[in-house]
Amino acid sequence: MITSLQNRNVKEAAALSAKKKERDRQGLFVVEGKKMFGEAPAEWISRVYIAESAEAEILEQYRAKLSGLSYETVSDEVFAKMSDTVTPQGILCLVRQQHYNIEEMLENANKKRMLFILLEDIQDPGNLGTIFRTAEAAGADGVIMSERTTDIYNPKTIRSTMGAVYRVPFFYAENFPSIFNKLQERNISVYAAHLKAETAYDVCDYKKGTAFLIGNEANGLSRETASCADQWISIPMEGRAESLNAAVASSILLYEAYRQRRNRT
Amino acid sequence: MITSLQNRNVKEAAALSAKKKERDRQGLFVVEGKKMFGEAPAEWISRVYIAESAEAEILEQYRAKLSGLSYETVSDEVFAKMSDTVTPQGILCLVRQQHYNIEEMLENANKKRMLFILLEDIQDPGNLGTIFRTAEAAGADGVIMSERTTDIYNPKTIRSTMGAVYRVPFFYAENFPSIFNKLQERNISVYAAHLKAETAYDVCDYKKGTAFLIGNEANGLSRETASCADQWISIPMEGRAESLNAAVASSILLYEAYRQRRNRT
Repeated sequence: MITSLQNRNVKEAAALSAKKKERDRQGLFVVEGKKMFGEAPAEWISRVYIAESAEAEILEQYRAKLSGLSYETVSDEVFAKMSDTVTPQGILCLVRQQHYNIEEMLENANKKRMLFILLEDIQDPGNLGTIFRTAEAAGADGVIMSERTTDIYNPKTIRSTMGAVYRVPFFYAENFPSIFNKLQERNISVYAAHLKAETAYDVCDYKKGTAFLIGNEANGLSRETASCADQWISIPMEGRAESLNAAVASSILLYEAYRQRRNRT
Repeated sequence: MITSLQNRNVKEAAALSAKKKERDRQGLFVVEGKKMFGEAPAEWISRVYIAESAEAEILEQYRAKLSGLSYETVSDEVFAKMSDTVTPQGILCLVRQQHYNIEEMLENANKKRMLFILLEDIQDPGNLGTIFRTAEAAGADGVIMSERTTDIYNPKTIRSTMGAVYRVPFFYAENFPSIFNKLQERNISVYAAHLKAETAYDVCDYKKGTAFLIGNEANGLSRETASCADQWISIPMEGRAESLNAAVASSILLYEAYRQRRNRT
């Protein structure tokens, strides 16, 4: 059992929570809590730590999953140091980062009507995680992000995905607008959510290949990116509202596409 | 100019940011930032504090609004102590809490098809603020909350509303389900978003008086509250998604109602 706050593994977990650089260097990220451990693909898990006081209960609940993995028990004090959350649930694991290939993400474009969400420079970790969560629920095939979008492996983002990060393929694009060509070549239309659009989002037909493009929380879409879209769409607003939260805008669009696809009228 | 961290006004602003009890005792809440100051109804504002280094710029930008108000300049160190934000914008004000009357909120029910959102025990300040923001945008007439819903006057909630808190009437109900009667008497139907509902949200007609009922982030709706709704509705989900973020679910429903009302088909 690890009882020293100076232990190398303890410091490593804390560094992986706090620093993107460290996460990228090691190719790992930190997952906390029972639900997120329970849903993590076993073959992605690199290491598991369990708090002393939670050990009996967690062994009982996750016997099958833990049997194929080795885990280490740590004192409650050490666990609190490793944990990023206010009320730790007693289990934390290091998980291997996934690297999806954009060509593979698009390979089914001929067989099905795909649905993507494209994010330019989204900065809020909670927004990004919530978008993953909603994308899975709306049946999206993936999330494609500009390089300056916040890190999906930030612990707050991971938590907000509620497990969708394990199941929704994603890609950080070095040259973001160039990806649009790859989509368009496969008959996936890019709809940019834009405050200056004249077409309301709900008059378009999303039953064919569709990708929604959402801009940064404070600045919206860059001119270059917006100009590469096939169509600009607006989400109408009443009152003095000037914009919507980025995760909310994403959800309204994703669910409009999903609604159209479910109701074949 | 206030330069002492021990000044009574400085401590008061910090206490109002941190404690609901103090906010309720004084009937005030804290608003930070230029945009939120600019949108605050002048007659609601009780006191204004401006950071020394931002004074010239803020006086220039808000001359008209500030001319009717008295303000106090504080040193930057003092402002940082008063502020709840990581990057303070140099202006902070104390604003009087509003108390809406539920009967007044409903008095137009005969003249127009109203739209409300009903929240049971929502706990996340960001979710609550985002729901206000979306409610305004979707043209909702108000937000009605159970007593144990998180405080709208929490600084994080206020920020997330992006100003909607000034414009969307709201009400905390001591006896939450009893409010449903008041709505139903006025032909406003209560639709409970429920994971066990058999009716999809998008087959109902929301062109008449409509209220959407949303439950707590972790536990959903209580049995008693759910049983008082007119109809349960579900938001379909693909993949292994088990639920949606509460602000996302609210947005999907509010925008479906708004979509139907805008498109008269």
